[in-house]
Amino acid sequence: MPGINTAVLLISCRDRPGLVHAVAEFVLSIGANILHAEQHIDREAGVFFQRVEFDLSGSGLEPTQVAAAFEPVAARYEMAASVRFSDERPRIALLASHHAHCLADLLGRWRSGELAAEVVAVISNHSKHAALAEFSAVPFHHLPVTPETRVRQESVLVDVLSGNDVEVVVLARYMQVLGPAVLNAFPSRIINIHHSFLPAFVGARPYHQAQQRGVKLIGATAHYATAELDEGPIIAQDVAAVTHRDSIDDLVRKGRDLETVVLARAVRAHVEHRTLVFGNKTIVFS
Amino acid sequence: MPGINTAVLLISCRDRPGLVHAVAEFVLSIGANILHAEQHIDREAGVFFQRVEFDLSGSGLEPTQVAAAFEPVAARYEMAASVRFSDERPRIALLASHHAHCLADLLGRWRSGELAAEVVAVISNHSKHAALAEFSAVPFHHLPVTPETRVRQESVLVDVLSGNDVEVVVLARYMQVLGPAVLNAFPSRIINIHHSFLPAFVGARPYHQAQQRGVKLIGATAHYATAELDEGPIIAQDVAAVTHRDSIDDLVRKGRDLETVVLARAVRAHVEHRTLVFGNKTIVFS
Amino acid sequence: MPGINTAVLLISCRDRPGLVHAVAEFVLSIGANILHAEQHIDREAGVFFQRVEFDLSGSGLEPTQVAAAFEPVAARYEMAASVRFSDERPRIALLASHHAHCLADLLGRWRSGELAAEVVAVISNHSKHAALAEFSAVPFHHLPVTPETRVRQESVLVDVLSGNDVEVVVLARYMQVLGPAVLNAFPSRIINIHHSFLPAFVGARPYHQAQQRGVKLIGATAHYATAELDEGPIIAQDVAAVTHRDSIDDLVRKGRDLETVVLARAVRAHVEHRTLVFGNKTIVFS
Amino acid sequence: MPGINTAVLLISCRDRPGLVHAVAEFVLSIGANILHAEQHIDREAGVFFQRVEFDLSGSGLEPTQVAAAFEPVAARYEMAASVRFSDERPRIALLASHHAHCLADLLGRWRSGELAAEVVAVISNHSKHAALAEFSAVPFHHLPVTPETRVRQESVLVDVLSGNDVEVVVLARYMQVLGPAVLNAFPSRIINIHHSFLPAFVGARPYHQAQQRGVKLIGATAHYATAELDEGPIIAQDVAAVTHRDSIDDLVRKGRDLETVVLARAVRAHVEHRTLVFGNKTIVFS
Repeated sequence: MPGINTAVLLISCRDRPGLVHAVAEFVLSIGANILHAEQHIDREAGVFFQRVEFDLSGSGLEPTQVAAAFEPVAARYEMAASVRFSDERPRIALLASHHAHCLADLLGRWRSGELAAEVVAVISNHSKHAALAEFSAVPFHHLPVTPETRVRQESVLVDVLSGNDVEVVVLARYMQVLGPAVLNAFPSRIINIHHSFLPAFVGARPYHQAQQRGVKLIGATAHYATAELDEGPIIAQDVAAVTHRDSIDDLVRKGRDLETVVLARAVRAHVEHRTLVFGNKTIVFS
Repeated sequence: MPGINTAVLLISCRDRPGLVHAVAEFVLSIGANILHAEQHIDREAGVFFQRVEFDLSGSGLEPTQVAAAFEPVAARYEMAASVRFSDERPRIALLASHHAHCLADLLGRWRSGELAAEVVAVISNHSKHAALAEFSAVPFHHLPVTPETRVRQESVLVDVLSGNDVEVVVLARYMQVLGPAVLNAFPSRIINIHHSFLPAFVGARPYHQAQQRGVKLIGATAHYATAELDEGPIIAQDVAAVTHRDSIDDLVRKGRDLETVVLARAVRAHVEHRTLVFGNKTIVFS
Repeated sequence: MPGINTAVLLISCRDRPGLVHAVAEFVLSIGANILHAEQHIDREAGVFFQRVEFDLSGSGLEPTQVAAAFEPVAARYEMAASVRFSDERPRIALLASHHAHCLADLLGRWRSGELAAEVVAVISNHSKHAALAEFSAVPFHHLPVTPETRVRQESVLVDVLSGNDVEVVVLARYMQVLGPAVLNAFPSRIINIHHSFLPAFVGARPYHQAQQRGVKLIGATAHYATAELDEGPIIAQDVAAVTHRDSIDDLVRKGRDLETVVLARAVRAHVEHRTLVFGNKTIVFS
Repeated sequence: MPGINTAVLLISCRDRPGLVHAVAEFVLSIGANILHAEQHIDREAGVFFQRVEFDLSGSGLEPTQVAAAFEPVAARYEMAASVRFSDERPRIALLASHHAHCLADLLGRWRSGELAAEVVAVISNHSKHAALAEFSAVPFHHLPVTPETRVRQESVLVDVLSGNDVEVVVLARYMQVLGPAVLNAFPSRIINIHHSFLPAFVGARPYHQAQQRGVKLIGATAHYATAELDEGPIIAQDVAAVTHRDSIDDLVRKGRDLETVVLARAVRAHVEHRTLVFGNKTIVFS
């Protein structure tokens, strides 16, 4: 909500009676007012998840004091909890390889004020995106990668990311595999996008396979990057209808459009503190 | 959830701090456990809405005692509140005129056990649906309507509905206008379905107009019936893509499929106690 | 088009100049008028496909004479060609196991006159669908299957199908594997429906796997049955959005709705002579 | 198709037998090969429409000779016909007011080579888009408009458009009303985008009205601009699902995303010569 600084509490813990009450009591006790609250119970796992957004303006508490004030509640119920604020703007790095569509879209959303985040770096293994980054007034880092330099460049990448206090890494069609050095530094904070099909096509040239099989839908999936390539917790998905009239070029183009919107949706959910990862699954609060 | 009888509390009142807490405290106080809770605040109107579903199995309270137990909370916060139970099965009457698609679909969902309701009457101004009703073991009422008999038949209709303790009236393509006698007897409990277009087409033969205009989408809207024809609070909507290749017959057929799924979605939301009407708007909890 | 008997020519052959002209010349030469024509060229394979629908009413030719009249054109260009008529109503058998949703939907479409076909048999390994078949005035065949009787029952099934001059076999959630005796008797004429996911889940209980993975979309695919289970040429596909709030029961229910509409769409395309199978791909003319 | 220069023939005329044949014969006679052909008959109006795409590479004819060669066929059947070529790149002007989303998207598609056109001018009544135009290496024209200067600026606008040999004018969220001077200069060549709702909301602040009514879908429509504001022939439409949880800001944001994709789809159809306007309807060939 424009103009109001709200706090967001993200909680997960073993399910038991009294959790909603305990959180609501906390919010009331600090003189704040709940604006949104949504909870989910994973019955098979017996786990409780909650996202509570509240207005601090009537509260005596400073934002910096909220986490400490909640500490006793979290301890009592053994909650994993984090507190974020709507006027915090997570620092984002955008990584791209050859294609510019996701990069240009995210930068455009950011320039228009739509993305509640700070884009602090554009990083690419190609130099071609320098002008787009400059136009958006974002520092550009050219980190070319060859089989020989991969390991070394990954450590440079980690340096650039930490040197810029980056919290969220968006792989906006970044086609280099990331090793454990990067993945472990940003658990559930690297967002990737890739194409998806029904059925799935394993191996090279999936669009060729999809066309050969005559699929009627193509898709895209945004997920958190994990060591299992393209297998991390799903954040967002969408599909588009295709027909036999679509050439492979058409499929690729429609795939680009899907990648653009699905990645933007996932980044938006993340920076608005609406995602919670549990196992290999993402709870996306609405 | 199969096997568990849950209670559903639907609440609306003026927004103020402490509402979520008060409801959570009530649920805790009766020894019940919240399974789902969703709230919404209409900021312009300053109104709070909540749907809370809780498991009574650990509670000492009988279902019949819950409403009275909640009474003090409702009074303190001037809440409009209702309590329903997942094992209650609202008694439904299905009204249809010529077309059978919505009627057959709803009866099929009910026979398969998908619809948490009891279909107690099929009512039509035509006799043709008698066999379908009989196949589904639902009593059929033939209430032919002519300009001369309209007023009298409407009073017969109200008698049939009240004689069967009907709670929810589904206009499954029932093409007779309902007068105040029926509308007032079932406020926010008559569900209607009709076609929708972008842009809207006023007057007769909307599918012809839509085709003449070359629309690329047709739609259907399910809403609560009010005195303003087709203008009541919207419950569900959907659209389908069409092209210049679609004949008017094709549009009508695609429209039928939309009507079927959108009406089923609306009926489902209603019988699961997921709707709250406020002004000319329906809050549909997820 | 209601009221006009049209002929449909379905053609495939090696691509070369003059094919569209040759077919148009044929239609003109018999005094008929083209109503729709759509062609497709598979560039990788170098194959031409065409569907031409024409009005015979101004022609001296009887429908039964069209195929022979076209024979010389087909021979000259080495075309695989078939001629069908809009007033032909392909004879369909509907096979179902436990679930009734696809069966009830297709019977309802047929009763309403929407399906340009003749449903001549409902066949099930369960007896429960007898009443539904009877209500629709379609003969019901109960063919229970056990591991011991599978081979023998499959030969009975082929007898029932041929005894009824069945042209199209629709597996409306028929959960028995069909062997070569059936598959070979109905090449590209057995339509199956099954669930689909992005990503695909191999093995048992796919809806459980999908929920565990937190997918945001579930899908259904209709295809021609081949020896490779669930791998035949795709006719139609669709998806529905799901969230973490959807229980496995919700996923299954949404999956049923998808199966119903996708199978109906595929059957419709087939009986209107709008499908051509090439390799493992279906051209679906619009 | 990359690498092949193809010709596109767009035809409309009174329907009669022999039209498909006449066109196919023409293509054959000039030694060309049909790649795609699609026709449509508007039965109520008795009008035939066709789009034929053919490969000239085996033909003795130069592209510039095709129109003249077709002239006799067009005359014989009284066809309105136009010939375009896939390597022609229509010259486009993009007009925008305050919002950049459609402008940035179209420029991005153009820079990536996806749009088969030449963007030759960005025109705005605000100066803010100068940098975006410059980044894309497109000349920027600042034409501020006040009630006093409107008429004069419109004539300047026509001068800029004709001075740049502009063929297609894209109103990429250009919020100034265009008068007859511009509209008449570009019949069926000005593409506009605007929001759409089911039901439609007349008057100011439609998103507020939509939220107040509790609509479950919002939409966008791209159409050719005519004197009837927002009532011209529809080229493309799409919708997105919304709920009561969406604030007006959310509706506006989802509306922007719809506007972006729907306008891009319409522009693409136009520059690929896949649209034919007939009355108040657009045939969009696939």
